[in-house]
Amino acid sequence: MPSYKAPVDDVLFVLNDVIGIDRYNNIPSFAEATPDLVKAVLEEGARLCEEVLQPLNRVGDTKGCTRADDGSVTTPAGFKDAFAQFSEGGWIGLSADPEYGGQGLPHTLSAALNEFVSSANMAFGMYPGLTQGAIAALTLHGTDEQKALYLPKLISGEWLGTMNLTEPHCGTDLGLLKTKAVPNGDGSYAITGTKIFISAGEHDLSGNIIHLVLARIEGAPEGTKGISLFVVPKFLPDADGNPGERNPLGCGALEEKMGIHGNSTCVMNYDGATGWLVGEADKGLRAMFTMMNEARLGVGIQGLSQSEVAYQNAVTYARERLQGRALSGPADPDKPADPIIVHPDIRRMLMNIKAFNEAARALVLWTAIRGDIAHRGTDEAERQAADDLMGLMTPVIKGVLTDTGFENAVAAQQVYGGHGYIAEWGMEQFVRDARIAMIYEGANGIQALDLVGRKLPAKGGRAVMAFFGEVEGFLKANAEDEAMAPYAKPLKTGLETLQQATMWFMNNAMTKPDNAGAGSTDYMHLFGLVALGYMWAQMAKVAQAKLADGADNKAFYETKLATGRYFMDRVMPEARAHLARIETGSDSMMALSADAF
Amino acid sequence: MPSYKAPVDDVLFVLNDVIGIDRYNNIPSFAEATPDLVKAVLEEGARLCEEVLQPLNRVGDTKGCTRADDGSVTTPAGFKDAFAQFSEGGWIGLSADPEYGGQGLPHTLSAALNEFVSSANMAFGMYPGLTQGAIAALTLHGTDEQKALYLPKLISGEWLGTMNLTEPHCGTDLGLLKTKAVPNGDGSYAITGTKIFISAGEHDLSGNIIHLVLARIEGAPEGTKGISLFVVPKFLPDADGNPGERNPLGCGALEEKMGIHGNSTCVMNYDGATGWLVGEADKGLRAMFTMMNEARLGVGIQGLSQSEVAYQNAVTYARERLQGRALSGPADPDKPADPIIVHPDIRRMLMNIKAFNEAARALVLWTAIRGDIAHRGTDEAERQAADDLMGLMTPVIKGVLTDTGFENAVAAQQVYGGHGYIAEWGMEQFVRDARIAMIYEGANGIQALDLVGRKLPAKGGRAVMAFFGEVEGFLKANAEDEAMAPYAKPLKTGLETLQQATMWFMNNAMTKPDNAGAGSTDYMHLFGLVALGYMWAQMAKVAQAKLADGADNKAFYETKLATGRYFMDRVMPEARAHLARIETGSDSMMALSADAF
Repeated sequence: MPSYKAPVDDVLFVLNDVIGIDRYNNIPSFAEATPDLVKAVLEEGARLCEEVLQPLNRVGDTKGCTRADDGSVTTPAGFKDAFAQFSEGGWIGLSADPEYGGQGLPHTLSAALNEFVSSANMAFGMYPGLTQGAIAALTLHGTDEQKALYLPKLISGEWLGTMNLTEPHCGTDLGLLKTKAVPNGDGSYAITGTKIFISAGEHDLSGNIIHLVLARIEGAPEGTKGISLFVVPKFLPDADGNPGERNPLGCGALEEKMGIHGNSTCVMNYDGATGWLVGEADKGLRAMFTMMNEARLGVGIQGLSQSEVAYQNAVTYARERLQGRALSGPADPDKPADPIIVHPDIRRMLMNIKAFNEAARALVLWTAIRGDIAHRGTDEAERQAADDLMGLMTPVIKGVLTDTGFENAVAAQQVYGGHGYIAEWGMEQFVRDARIAMIYEGANGIQALDLVGRKLPAKGGRAVMAFFGEVEGFLKANAEDEAMAPYAKPLKTGLETLQQATMWFMNNAMTKPDNAGAGSTDYMHLFGLVALGYMWAQMAKVAQAKLADGADNKAFYETKLATGRYFMDRVMPEARAHLARIETGSDSMMALSADAF
Repeated sequence: MPSYKAPVDDVLFVLNDVIGIDRYNNIPSFAEATPDLVKAVLEEGARLCEEVLQPLNRVGDTKGCTRADDGSVTTPAGFKDAFAQFSEGGWIGLSADPEYGGQGLPHTLSAALNEFVSSANMAFGMYPGLTQGAIAALTLHGTDEQKALYLPKLISGEWLGTMNLTEPHCGTDLGLLKTKAVPNGDGSYAITGTKIFISAGEHDLSGNIIHLVLARIEGAPEGTKGISLFVVPKFLPDADGNPGERNPLGCGALEEKMGIHGNSTCVMNYDGATGWLVGEADKGLRAMFTMMNEARLGVGIQGLSQSEVAYQNAVTYARERLQGRALSGPADPDKPADPIIVHPDIRRMLMNIKAFNEAARALVLWTAIRGDIAHRGTDEAERQAADDLMGLMTPVIKGVLTDTGFENAVAAQQVYGGHGYIAEWGMEQFVRDARIAMIYEGANGIQALDLVGRKLPAKGGRAVMAFFGEVEGFLKANAEDEAMAPYAKPLKTGLETLQQATMWFMNNAMTKPDNAGAGSTDYMHLFGLVALGYMWAQMAKVAQAKLADGADNKAFYETKLATGRYFMDRVMPEARAHLARIETGSDSMMALSADAF
């Protein structure tokens, strides 16, 4: 059976030593997040994840959710109790507005906790995760009345939320959606249509389920400009705000899927269900997109989370499994064979994952803090700059962390040999669960297009120039530091490669948009390499300073330096291959007619 | 529901036009394999795969195998009838010895057919596939009496076979195995022990099951030098060679696994079961290894097979699914959206797979024909050279075709967006089934070590020098052909990169073996790139000649040229990244102590 230990120390290293969150004390939520509180929150969250959520991961997978003929859905045994503990602990509203019962702590802390939750039990984590999305939507776009009605109950976990976008004929291209909303004359609308792939669409965890639904008001324009967002509760709140009459909506079927079996993925049917507009009519997509950065960051975290838990178990197995002898001579001659962690190819897989996980965690927190600054910062210019970087990094995190997170889960499974393919060892579940993160909340090809087609050119390239400037500033500041050269030089090469790719798009994609599309996925991964490499360079700088200061935890910092070195040696060289592919353009990619495939 | 069409035309192109099997008429089995016969056999096999095996692929996955309390195992509904058709068609013994009822056709033809069978139903294909392994073992190492007793029934499919290597504590390191064999005094042995991961270990498809079991004769040396191979039938043949007394052996449990549910993966218990030595005592591993090349080629083919069937379905979906508009302007303005095959990033995934599949198929057939020459060739030098190349290419095919085949199945699933994650579309099954091929028959890390540690240095590097010489010869012969430059130049760069990596190992791995282990997987994939690139260059040469000759099927050859071009543009650039990683050596990979992970 797999196990999990939340990487609290690594989060604290990033928050305290690399990012230095004490620098953000001027932001309200950070002022309360003292080092002691942050540590206590992380440790308490870690305990819940390790002791309550992780032991339910396998039963969630093997038993899954079941739907009764009346459309009700039962979650796997133990989920309901675990959810009660989760909501009672105040974890859903960790960074929600205290006015509605939230804890008002930084979103950065939620991001750290979300990694723990997803590592422990990704399918479980989606229930509160989607509720966090609903809370964000209502906080940003709801009326005061809607906020007062829904937010306290969503934040407490008494009710849970969902997001309803996809329909059978449209996922990426929401302009095609058909679900309609007809005004009832009393300010409410009658919502009719079918939504698919609705995570947590129906379940037994909460007394009500609050659906946020995209639909088209009768007579609205076609395409994306006629889509509105509605709040559609399973039970209509009565005058006291308690669940009242049942709304005509429900789960028509549960999807049989590859993984995340513990989460109910529903076909949702709306048969004239009563809903209320959230935000402006016909501006529903815009309302969705303002939440998208946060949701996509959350999915990127899922990629990291499966990579981390799969890694931890692969390390344990590699230390215990005896098979073969070290190439350099027996490491443990008294035993019948050496532990497989002595073999370079096993190291290769473990080091690849470790070097990714620690940089990815830093990148998530580095980006999340920009989300906090963008929302709560006191200086307008600082808020704007933070929002730029958050927007730029979101598709990178979503695309790269889920692609690589999945690859890493596969590699960790490989460490187990044949046992990795057997269900009871739990490794194949991580692979199956991790797979969805590459698809939902915008498939990774869409993330790449978002990066190249929207985020790069936005505001004259202001965001990307700011990022390049920041990395260049770091490199310049460390140009004379010889100990930093093994980190700074490969980062500099990577940055120059990325800049060359960016220039290539500027020169070749304006006139021929297919050149942008053809290079977009490579560009996203190249961007990821540089962003992760920048995290490693910063972590190496801190580790060197700590060692120079005679820090107690010497082994921790030495391991950081060795792992960062591995990243530069073995991961960064991929940058050039990405550039070579980008620079071939779209000609050979688009040469064939659709019939020729 | 997914569909499948066997790529008969593509196989014929490779066999007739690229390899030119008519050049091998001097080899007995090829003399009978006239172009008409080959075509007829492929078409008849294709029909069986498309119409009988493929429709059972999903039921095999969803229902799987079931074990009753008495240890008997029932295969999924329809498998038994399908197997009856399969064996009656003579497909098991297609390339087996006619003396024992085989068809005596080239193994190359079996390799082509095995791709079709695996694409249609990989779990089904393993039943006859493992029997082919047992046939090969008995043909090479059995006594005349054993051959007479077992081969006709295995070739006809009346009985089926298995291979029993792995035990709970040993997979890769067979020197640790504990299953013991005690002489009964009558020439037979009593076999006792537990074997795991035994594919097709128990089932209801045949009247008897012939287990080939590795065990240690009482008093034999420890380690790999004391292992013997035994034939252990489920039912002991009586005097007439019919199934008689039940042997005390059986399936203790079925493994719950990630995929290939239609195949029974058994824990096999041997409780003093009667078995007979195959080959010499204590030389069992050597006997196994002589069959290994063929078995590993078979697993490589499984990688290709899942890549091919997943690709075909992804193409269909990409042509039909309407979502978004082409970046270059609407492709189909009359429809609500364009088919997603217009999008470059969808093309990228499809072209990656197509460019791999066609070259991988050529490489499999190019290697398989060397197997035929090695076994049946009339000239000793030619046989030796063929055996060298087959041995060299086997780990490359096993490792690269299964790693990339899996990646491709994942990419094809990605083309489906959310639907790819839903079981009924069938794409996620291809991913789960493809995953095992990276693990069994020697995990891919072992393939890489076999390539770098054994195949490269063998006989003073004779095999690798011969391969380099062949590619150099091709490049030299085409140096003046300008139309070939887009294929020849990248191939030349790739070859030089591979030669540089080879040289690096010669200079750096002798004194420090960890340097070989650290670069082995990158080297294997670099080798694969060059081998696949060489196939593309040859195919391009033929396609250009055909077009110059005014061939009828112009579109077929033009598509070949465009696809080969894509391979050179977009796939080959990875070569340099592999070299860069290899040349960093093992220092950063091995820097951490086992505790530091």
